[in-house]
Amino acid sequence: MPETTTTRTLSMQPLTREAFAPFGDVIEAAGESFPINGGMCDRFHDQARMEFTGDGRAGISVGFGRPYPLPYSFDLLERHPLGSQAFMPMTEDPFLVLVAPDEGGRPGTPIAFLTRPGQGVNYLRGVWHGVLTPLGRAVPFVIVDRIGTGNNLEEARFEAPWTVTAG
Amino acid sequence: MPETTTTRTLSMQPLTREAFAPFGDVIEAAGESFPINGGMCDRFHDQARMEFTGDGRAGISVGFGRPYPLPYSFDLLERHPLGSQAFMPMTEDPFLVLVAPDEGGRPGTPIAFLTRPGQGVNYLRGVWHGVLTPLGRAVPFVIVDRIGTGNNLEEARFEAPWTVTAG
Repeated sequence: MPETTTTRTLSMQPLTREAFAPFGDVIEAAGESFPINGGMCDRFHDQARMEFTGDGRAGISVGFGRPYPLPYSFDLLERHPLGSQAFMPMTEDPFLVLVAPDEGGRPGTPIAFLTRPGQGVNYLRGVWHGVLTPLGRAVPFVIVDRIGTGNNLEEARFEAPWTVTAG
Repeated sequence: MPETTTTRTLSMQPLTREAFAPFGDVIEAAGESFPINGGMCDRFHDQARMEFTGDGRAGISVGFGRPYPLPYSFDLLERHPLGSQAFMPMTEDPFLVLVAPDEGGRPGTPIAFLTRPGQGVNYLRGVWHGVLTPLGRAVPFVIVDRIGTGNNLEEARFEAPWTVTAG
């Protein structure tokens, strides 16, 4: 069914706060700031809507993510019902960000974003998103997410894969 | 007094977990990990001893830090009595990490560390440390620290400056 295949292709769009707002926060040196350290540093304050339920607390982890080639096909998204989850690269490599709106407990049509250097993301609690997908080479990411008990992972598979194109 | 000047020179040492442990945590893709995302990502879990007192909570901010030249002279250290504070660069540029033991409410002899690409730091609550000091060029840093009320900044000046050398 070539027709179906065509409609299940996703182009990457630039990651902007406006477009990403329903899914989470863009973490970057942009927007309002105030000077610290005698003016040598600009602080872009408190950028993430973090939320950790139950006995959860914020933790800092590192994820060393191996790269995916483009075009990239996937049929799996996941979400974390108990907490938000932030990913900030420790290199300047752009990475792919996949999210989808919730439609009755299942992910709807995914949206693909490509980051710029200096951008990270915070997924709101319960937002459908893809796995960590650096492009080109392996990248260490700072992860700020929930440390706590309980089942904090929900996965959903699409009936047919989606493909993110390089173009 | 040339003698005094000589003894107030600091060489940078490589940042290691062992050497840094009394002051905080090294955030990096090193040590124990477990696989996630079907083996495409290694998770180095919960690396920072975060602590936020009173009404404080963890927040994610970005600090855009302008660079300092070497040799770098300073006479000021600071600490945060109400919470830990983590800095993770969003580039691969090494940065200077200055800490000092507490000696009766004042900073003792400082120690200078130089990071490798992929390293960040978490200063424990109350640990004397320097301002954010990237070297060479401006760098955006992920900051995870306390968002909350109360006076969370204490500064101390040395009687004479310390100088960190490039060698």
